[in-house]
Amino acid sequence: MTYNRQEVLKKIISKNNTKMVLLVMDGIGDVPLNGKTPLMVANTPNLDKLAQESELGQTIPVLYGVTPGSGPAHLSLFGYDPLKYEIGRGILEALGIDVEVGEKDMVARGNFATVEGDIVVDRRAGRPATEENVRVCQIINSKIKEIKGVKVQVFPGKEHRFVVKFTGDNLSDKLSDADPQKNGLPIVFTEPTVDDEASKFTAEVVNEFLKKLKEVLKDEPKLNFGLLRGFSKYPDLPNFEEVYQVKAAAIATYPMYKGLAKLVGMNVISTGQTIEDEVRTLKEIYNDYDFFYFHVKKTDSYGEDGNFDMKVKVIEETDSIIPEILSLKPDVLVVTGDHSTPAFMKSHSWHPVPYMLYSRYTRKGLSNKFDEFECARGTLGTFYALDSMSLILAHAQRLEKYGA
Amino acid sequence: MTYNRQEVLKKIISKNNTKMVLLVMDGIGDVPLNGKTPLMVANTPNLDKLAQESELGQTIPVLYGVTPGSGPAHLSLFGYDPLKYEIGRGILEALGIDVEVGEKDMVARGNFATVEGDIVVDRRAGRPATEENVRVCQIINSKIKEIKGVKVQVFPGKEHRFVVKFTGDNLSDKLSDADPQKNGLPIVFTEPTVDDEASKFTAEVVNEFLKKLKEVLKDEPKLNFGLLRGFSKYPDLPNFEEVYQVKAAAIATYPMYKGLAKLVGMNVISTGQTIEDEVRTLKEIYNDYDFFYFHVKKTDSYGEDGNFDMKVKVIEETDSIIPEILSLKPDVLVVTGDHSTPAFMKSHSWHPVPYMLYSRYTRKGLSNKFDEFECARGTLGTFYALDSMSLILAHAQRLEKYGA
Repeated sequence: MTYNRQEVLKKIISKNNTKMVLLVMDGIGDVPLNGKTPLMVANTPNLDKLAQESELGQTIPVLYGVTPGSGPAHLSLFGYDPLKYEIGRGILEALGIDVEVGEKDMVARGNFATVEGDIVVDRRAGRPATEENVRVCQIINSKIKEIKGVKVQVFPGKEHRFVVKFTGDNLSDKLSDADPQKNGLPIVFTEPTVDDEASKFTAEVVNEFLKKLKEVLKDEPKLNFGLLRGFSKYPDLPNFEEVYQVKAAAIATYPMYKGLAKLVGMNVISTGQTIEDEVRTLKEIYNDYDFFYFHVKKTDSYGEDGNFDMKVKVIEETDSIIPEILSLKPDVLVVTGDHSTPAFMKSHSWHPVPYMLYSRYTRKGLSNKFDEFECARGTLGTFYALDSMSLILAHAQRLEKYGA
Repeated sequence: MTYNRQEVLKKIISKNNTKMVLLVMDGIGDVPLNGKTPLMVANTPNLDKLAQESELGQTIPVLYGVTPGSGPAHLSLFGYDPLKYEIGRGILEALGIDVEVGEKDMVARGNFATVEGDIVVDRRAGRPATEENVRVCQIINSKIKEIKGVKVQVFPGKEHRFVVKFTGDNLSDKLSDADPQKNGLPIVFTEPTVDDEASKFTAEVVNEFLKKLKEVLKDEPKLNFGLLRGFSKYPDLPNFEEVYQVKAAAIATYPMYKGLAKLVGMNVISTGQTIEDEVRTLKEIYNDYDFFYFHVKKTDSYGEDGNFDMKVKVIEETDSIIPEILSLKPDVLVVTGDHSTPAFMKSHSWHPVPYMLYSRYTRKGLSNKFDEFECARGTLGTFYALDSMSLILAHAQRLEKYGA
């Protein structure tokens, strides 16, 4: 597309008092097993009733046949062309644990690992308790503060995971992963993937950090080294609230999705760990925002586990909160996913994603069930997830006419 | 789209003796009220019979969620990317009342207004009889002929509307509207919206014109000033007949649609004010052209009025002329709209537009009714209106194979 959708929309976006809820059931799309998908098997009276008042369709997250990661899939749903904007995994991890990242920062995901000599014997250091992780990060931060003028900080995640942040001028993220990927292989250092001064310099800094890390942690029995992946600088994304002229809140339980929302400029709201917690949060903040990104993680988790039955259960649990969301009288409610995660594939997939849009302006009445087949034959047709935001804004009466 | 469709098509277009009719029922798409749209309610035996011989689909006029004005919507149907080609309102108005516009011209829509001192008290000068408008335009044309070397002419429209045309070298249309938009506010002069010599110069000319207008009309009781909007130069559009290698005729009753057709290079044929007049015209000129744009306005007008029942009536009236069109044995007959105008919304909307293509090469047999739901599930799927022209040409056997 030569045009930038957001640039087109900017010219016609207006504000009003409407409320829009984007309910993302992560990895919701599936493939029939014995003729039925989890959405077809699940008992979903509320979603099915909503389907009668909605328009259905199915979305392509990135391109036909392309299986998206969570980053590109969410960017699309938020209206950012995933082929234009790339987000490093390190950034996602950092934002997800509330690490501030700015223009001079370069971050990476870390694993604490156990090494014997120069051999990585356990890439996850025996999945330590998070407290262990916190303790070791404190040691590192007290002993390694700066390398070649570049400030260094580590931040504990869950279990073996951490984030390292390098802060300085002219840092590059064009670096290969410093991770042998398998146990039993020697330590790997990073290398610049492009031939420029910034990348060579940053690789030197990172490798110096790894050597110091080994020195500083040499007396630790398990967490005695670190593997680094997904080097990334902060991407320059247009601000969601400015582009769409909305106040936007994100309600999610998992770090990565909070990170994604923060990255585009949404306000990430603290919530609990269950879907019920998330609904409670939605109710509490409902008057303070007008766009709500509401993320349900476990549909994807169970899909990844190959657990068809539990995916069905999570769908039913999500179905049960629909009346609570509707009781808030949103002007637009979209129920969809970021991508498909067929249980029998145990992974993300390229399959189109079921999409349902409820508003008073829908061409409703064709469908009375929310599942992959109904969505494939819905009134919205098959469209790019990238088009979802303009559909939502249109149904919220927030788009002026284009041209005379 | 990075490719220019017309450039791709040019390479494979061939000529033959086929006839193609594009029947545009303006604003035809709707949203169900009590479960049914006007197309579903209307008794349309001929359209339904045609559906059995046709392929159905639905089109996106510009982008998902984007409500188009008549200009962009028609450009799409004619195969011109509406995000690439912008047409000013002044141009549409000018062409619609048969004002010739060329490369050295810059035009604007005018309203005759009533001012008291410098305050605009009635932006439409009491909606005068068109004769009054004609009389006042004659006065202006006799007294104001040129400003700073730029030729000036005004042309009467209906009631309070007129068009002003400035002719000269290096005129710009990057000017703000000279219109306070509300009664009771002071006169507004135009300002250049970009910082260049041409825009500054043109703004001076326009403002000098407005001052002279006030002087010339100072003794008129009502039509004693003019408000100007939609300054626009002639857009540089590829010629429809050259691009598609057809002789094209436009049959429309309303100025704007004649203007749009003329703009792309179609031959606008004089006709009467009714659908029956238009069919008669089609028959008269059928041997002289091979592409016919046939515009039915009132489906949109009644949609804009919120008059569901009369929209149904116009659909039924249009249905009744289908046998007459088919009696001419067109090789391709497309029945569609330029956009949706749901009666309950009383305005254009973003909803996809029903589309039906009849030819001997259709994958017919899936549908036996022409309405929004059948079209959403039709064999053509959901596609951009921009793709309509190549579909029409293909079914007219006018496109060679692409590549070997």
